[in-house]
Amino acid sequence: MSVLAQPADESPPSGQSQAIDQSPAIDQSPAIDRSQAVDRSSPAESPHDHRRLGRDLDIFTSDELAGAGFPLWLPNGAAIVAELERYIVEVERRSGYQHVRTPAVGKRELYERSGHWQHFGPDMFPPMPLGRGDNDADADAKAGRDELVLRPVLCPHHALVFRSRLRSHRELPLRIGEVGPQFRMERSGVVSGLTRVRGMILNDAHVFCPLDRAAEEVAAVLQMIDQAYDVLGIQAAHHSLSLRGPAEAGKSYAGSEEMWRKAEVVLRQALDLRGVEYREQPGEAAFYGPKIDVQVYDAQGREFTLSTVQVDLYQPERFDLEYVAPDGSRQRPVIVHRSVLASMERMVAYLLEAYGGALPAWLSPLQVRILPVGPDERDAARRVAQLGLEAGLRMDVDDRDESLGARVRNAQLRKVPYVAVVGAREAAGESVAVRLRDGRQAGVVAVERFVSGVRHAVESRTSDLTLPK
Amino acid sequence: MSVLAQPADESPPSGQSQAIDQSPAIDQSPAIDRSQAVDRSSPAESPHDHRRLGRDLDIFTSDELAGAGFPLWLPNGAAIVAELERYIVEVERRSGYQHVRTPAVGKRELYERSGHWQHFGPDMFPPMPLGRGDNDADADAKAGRDELVLRPVLCPHHALVFRSRLRSHRELPLRIGEVGPQFRMERSGVVSGLTRVRGMILNDAHVFCPLDRAAEEVAAVLQMIDQAYDVLGIQAAHHSLSLRGPAEAGKSYAGSEEMWRKAEVVLRQALDLRGVEYREQPGEAAFYGPKIDVQVYDAQGREFTLSTVQVDLYQPERFDLEYVAPDGSRQRPVIVHRSVLASMERMVAYLLEAYGGALPAWLSPLQVRILPVGPDERDAARRVAQLGLEAGLRMDVDDRDESLGARVRNAQLRKVPYVAVVGAREAAGESVAVRLRDGRQAGVVAVERFVSGVRHAVESRTSDLTLPK
Repeated sequence: MSVLAQPADESPPSGQSQAIDQSPAIDQSPAIDRSQAVDRSSPAESPHDHRRLGRDLDIFTSDELAGAGFPLWLPNGAAIVAELERYIVEVERRSGYQHVRTPAVGKRELYERSGHWQHFGPDMFPPMPLGRGDNDADADAKAGRDELVLRPVLCPHHALVFRSRLRSHRELPLRIGEVGPQFRMERSGVVSGLTRVRGMILNDAHVFCPLDRAAEEVAAVLQMIDQAYDVLGIQAAHHSLSLRGPAEAGKSYAGSEEMWRKAEVVLRQALDLRGVEYREQPGEAAFYGPKIDVQVYDAQGREFTLSTVQVDLYQPERFDLEYVAPDGSRQRPVIVHRSVLASMERMVAYLLEAYGGALPAWLSPLQVRILPVGPDERDAARRVAQLGLEAGLRMDVDDRDESLGARVRNAQLRKVPYVAVVGAREAAGESVAVRLRDGRQAGVVAVERFVSGVRHAVESRTSDLTLPK
Repeated sequence: MSVLAQPADESPPSGQSQAIDQSPAIDQSPAIDRSQAVDRSSPAESPHDHRRLGRDLDIFTSDELAGAGFPLWLPNGAAIVAELERYIVEVERRSGYQHVRTPAVGKRELYERSGHWQHFGPDMFPPMPLGRGDNDADADAKAGRDELVLRPVLCPHHALVFRSRLRSHRELPLRIGEVGPQFRMERSGVVSGLTRVRGMILNDAHVFCPLDRAAEEVAAVLQMIDQAYDVLGIQAAHHSLSLRGPAEAGKSYAGSEEMWRKAEVVLRQALDLRGVEYREQPGEAAFYGPKIDVQVYDAQGREFTLSTVQVDLYQPERFDLEYVAPDGSRQRPVIVHRSVLASMERMVAYLLEAYGGALPAWLSPLQVRILPVGPDERDAARRVAQLGLEAGLRMDVDDRDESLGARVRNAQLRKVPYVAVVGAREAAGESVAVRLRDGRQAGVVAVERFVSGVRHAVESRTSDLTLPK
């Protein structure tokens, strides 16, 4: 029993190759597709469509029994999500954020209080009636309003965290972060891949602070977004200042004129502090306040919102949030809502398309594939993989009975950043012959130096695969 | 703006001390309790009751708007959960597990397929009807069975991961792990603290393997449980072999006689392989198969199940799971269900009570509190905290205008493992005077050596606070 994962796309036993060929470049034939996937992309999809890459690289799957719009992250996709989460949580921690975990559901009254029930209702799932646990929904519903609902947003739970005890001005800005689930009642006809989903994992946070500190906090978020885009290789198209517009069907705004005016001033100050140019977008505000949206283009050239920062004077009033000011008086904080990485679903879809699946090493589900030239080098290859495992790297061994060339090509199709070949000479010398994903040969390197070199590339989150000399 | 968190229990501005005293040892007076907490423990609760410790140490909170049985993890509690998750995911990764992320909800049909709907129904939340997104639940319900339900367990989603593509025998044992949410329809009258909840975060995994490999896999899980208990300081009371019993109200069993017989043989073999004594418990099996339950005592001497390993031949049949055997034939795997840490809620409740809140350093929400003797040492204290932050440690500075003795006592009440005092001499010499939680003085230590010493204690996950010489 090996502790090392087998290559996911390995060949079947001889004689069965057609029946269970899982070669990533070839679509599965309908005859052996047992996944009942509900998210087949159209025949016209491009090779850079994240749905195709997601399928070819085993990033996510969907299943009619799980429900449309509820993708399942396979191990490869979950590895990307875990790396993104580790990155942003670490950045937030260093910026003074504290992380919480709050439930995926809340009571209907929670969203009546926050205003989402009134202003965001069509995007929410219908509530499930709570009761005596006998699933007699009708009887329970009659019994009252004790109803539970999949949460459409995280902010109301974070407001509850804020008011879980009386707060002093010395605790502010209180920055509450969470990478957690939220749900949107998308119509089943429009859900697609990772970009239109019903269940998502959001990188969310709420900063509670006095109004006169809010511009500084918003500017700090804009800076964090810039830094994250640098690391992830994302090019922002432009910044939008999303303001109220005329009331439309299904769109309404809460709060007083004064709240909206103050919040807008804060956002403009923050944009000026950072020297960011922006376009005003009437009608794109949240129901509770204006926001700055960071717009990017996807691989098809379509513009969409990735990151967002919002200033909210409405929910603090609805939840009666207060802190004790230096003079002993009770004051109301504002809430700065912000998401840097957006949902994990949207971010991974974007990155897959932007990189054509060839993600930087730190985000690659498989970082190193080790290829023993023949059966005699299998043990040496496994020792390399064990060292990598201990160094926290994601490595596997492809020791299938196929030509080295075929296995190298397969690793390229899987977009593996580093391929380490172990021949007789390398096995004897405790070294590996390294080939980079871009085709460059990095020569024969001692195993220890190879592992530490890959680890360095991973830890520095560079998109350059060059190993240090 | 400091990046360092303020002490959570800091004093208010002078003149306000009564109104906002957050001293952990003193219950908040009703007049300032704005949390509308629904989980007040009884007056008879012991000082080791996790509900009291959870409140005093800001581990979790509850709120009537979030719903009974849906605790919110505050930053201190979320830090413990994150450490437990990091620990078990790392152990699992080294043992060949692959991690996935799957949705918190599934379609009703998913649980009809798994058998939970028929056999586990009273423990499930009522489904919410899906439809056109207009919340018109009755109309949608009439339209068909397109209903979504909070998931009661993770296994059906993991079965979908298994069958997302055809599997080869070379991929087995396929070990699919997830730390994810699940939900139980506990009656609102019985929910309490972290031990009876409606929403929980489970450390779950499912091993898909041939029947003749299952005993070995179960034995490996029993070993992983033993190792985890060593690290966490948990004493198992005994192992139960939970078997079918006579059908009772609300309890029924699925599958054939042969399935149950085979599964029971596997569990007995695994117990024998590990040389574990066990007690048979008829009537305690899961509906789909027998299980081994690891029983422990809580602080009140009550026995409960913490970890579990189960062998299931039923769901593989229901989901028509198959793999391609070496001879090319299609074979059915068994599923080994297992949880090592149980739910994060139950584990944290257990650990809080077992340690009386004084958790080992690696699990402590706050690992180091730095106390500048006076205002002149504030900057030096903040430099120490910055070093700790960069080393990944959880440190804060308590520079309130109170006596050193009062601040030391406060840190003790907060169960902080290390207190580092910075006086004029320490500030000048880039050192700290270290005091351990158990009252021992560790002398004056250079800052660098102190930080690396604490980091060593944290990384080795020891419960011994002694710093290396």
